[in-house]
Amino acid sequence: MASSESQALSDLYKGWVATLAAHPDWPIDQVRRLFEHWGDVTGEPGDVDYVEADAGGVPALWAIPKGASADHVIQATHGGGYVVGSRYSHRKLFGHIAKATGVRTLILDYRRAPEHLHPAPVEDAVTAYRWLLGQGYQPRNIALTGDSAGGALAVTTLLALRDRGLPLPSASAPLSPWSDLLATGKSNTENEERDHFVKRHLAANLSAVYLGDKGESPARRDPLASPLYADFAGLPPLYIQVGGDEALLDDASRLAEAARAAGVDVTYEVWPEQQHVFQFLAGTAPEADDAVAKLAGWLRARFGLNAAAA
Amino acid sequence: MASSESQALSDLYKGWVATLAAHPDWPIDQVRRLFEHWGDVTGEPGDVDYVEADAGGVPALWAIPKGASADHVIQATHGGGYVVGSRYSHRKLFGHIAKATGVRTLILDYRRAPEHLHPAPVEDAVTAYRWLLGQGYQPRNIALTGDSAGGALAVTTLLALRDRGLPLPSASAPLSPWSDLLATGKSNTENEERDHFVKRHLAANLSAVYLGDKGESPARRDPLASPLYADFAGLPPLYIQVGGDEALLDDASRLAEAARAAGVDVTYEVWPEQQHVFQFLAGTAPEADDAVAKLAGWLRARFGLNAAAA
Repeated sequence: MASSESQALSDLYKGWVATLAAHPDWPIDQVRRLFEHWGDVTGEPGDVDYVEADAGGVPALWAIPKGASADHVIQATHGGGYVVGSRYSHRKLFGHIAKATGVRTLILDYRRAPEHLHPAPVEDAVTAYRWLLGQGYQPRNIALTGDSAGGALAVTTLLALRDRGLPLPSASAPLSPWSDLLATGKSNTENEERDHFVKRHLAANLSAVYLGDKGESPARRDPLASPLYADFAGLPPLYIQVGGDEALLDDASRLAEAARAAGVDVTYEVWPEQQHVFQFLAGTAPEADDAVAKLAGWLRARFGLNAAAA
Repeated sequence: MASSESQALSDLYKGWVATLAAHPDWPIDQVRRLFEHWGDVTGEPGDVDYVEADAGGVPALWAIPKGASADHVIQATHGGGYVVGSRYSHRKLFGHIAKATGVRTLILDYRRAPEHLHPAPVEDAVTAYRWLLGQGYQPRNIALTGDSAGGALAVTTLLALRDRGLPLPSASAPLSPWSDLLATGKSNTENEERDHFVKRHLAANLSAVYLGDKGESPARRDPLASPLYADFAGLPPLYIQVGGDEALLDDASRLAEAARAAGVDVTYEVWPEQQHVFQFLAGTAPEADDAVAKLAGWLRARFGLNAAAA
């Protein structure tokens, strides 16, 4: 059974869906202000410093745990349908991952729609990665992570790097990745009641805003928008986490299957009865803390670091 | 008339008072978790880095605005009745003040009651100030600020420094200071309905917890607990801000009068129809932004810096 603490995320999401339904004409700035409260449910990690940086032109926020490895880095892309969310809304979430892993984490403020359409976020993630290489980090000492749309970016960034012949990072860990903008997963309908946030009309609207179309364009099958349809050959190990009550459950499970079928080393794990990006409850709910601990252990193993963070 | 945005703080406070009334038996940790959400209503300042530090044994958080003066520093003590609140709950509030002033700000996690009774917070503020002197900051380049109980600390720290013959900082800016633990102000009753947070029973309870008594002890008149009863001779300039709807309005106005009567250079300003520490709405409500801008201008003048922050 889901912990009583995990109810806080359902409550947040129900409030958002109700607020958006009550204010269909809100300008984008007001919608974004609403979603800036995503991290309000996250416990403060503590022992982590936060330093803003310019990652080759991409505004970013370093989350630097005390005693962090000097050689390793995680590049993190936040969720929010490519339209909302920021380095600030996700500060504590990625701060927890940074702290548990003992590795400094660069949280990107990639360009968002509707001001900037697909594939601007992918381009910005590639730019930031090249900037990290320029800072002297070795590809084997870099990992990617991200949640929701940012979880998709944690895969599409790999595709773009591979296709351009750039050296790949050692691993990627997408959380609740939004991998299919065609929304063909059965869970989109079967879990729509249980998922208190990712309702079909909201996801469809975000897709249309991100792609700058009305829903008909072939861009929906572009692997850089919908990594479910990608050729996964040559990708590094993936660790995909998802909540069992998610509308995007099949976005995660089918991404795991497809990557595994292409020979990628995939770890896939479902947390029953959990909501979209339940890791937001890090520091307050046991399921989130468990997921972050497992993610950290997996990343440290990929990095060849010892089992526990300093 | 108060801005519509400023309603958010009233809503937060009403929710807290109702939650505390519904859960009179909550352990202190759970009460503290509730108050950690104080900063949820504050806009993210941006362009400010946050770095944890050990200020001579006092855990602290630096809020360092981009382009901050190298020579100046603000020491900030958070509110919460000496029992709740932290460097994290007040990160954004003091981040706004740091950014507007262009001066790095050290937010203290002083020891709290009931684990540590009066005068532990005063001792910690003195310890952190001595640590700043040890770091090479000149007293004339240091200012104090704080809110509520932390606003009282921004005065009692001065008293303790003076009484020990230590060099005084150049200024202090208490926000909604809780200066009278005897609760003798008329506004405690006259504004009790309008103030959605500082109800008499809550303040009385916090006083008893902080002093470790049942409300009868003479410690309530100790100037290091209730600076309203202090000898203000020799104190540097004070700038006191308060909301017009506050139960603690008279704590602020009488503190201003008493200090002025003792020859202190006092600036006192009331924001009509505003709640306790309305500056928490910095980045989201005009009254808070106005107050922070005025505070920054006043501090820069005390520091001899030019009018606008870099």
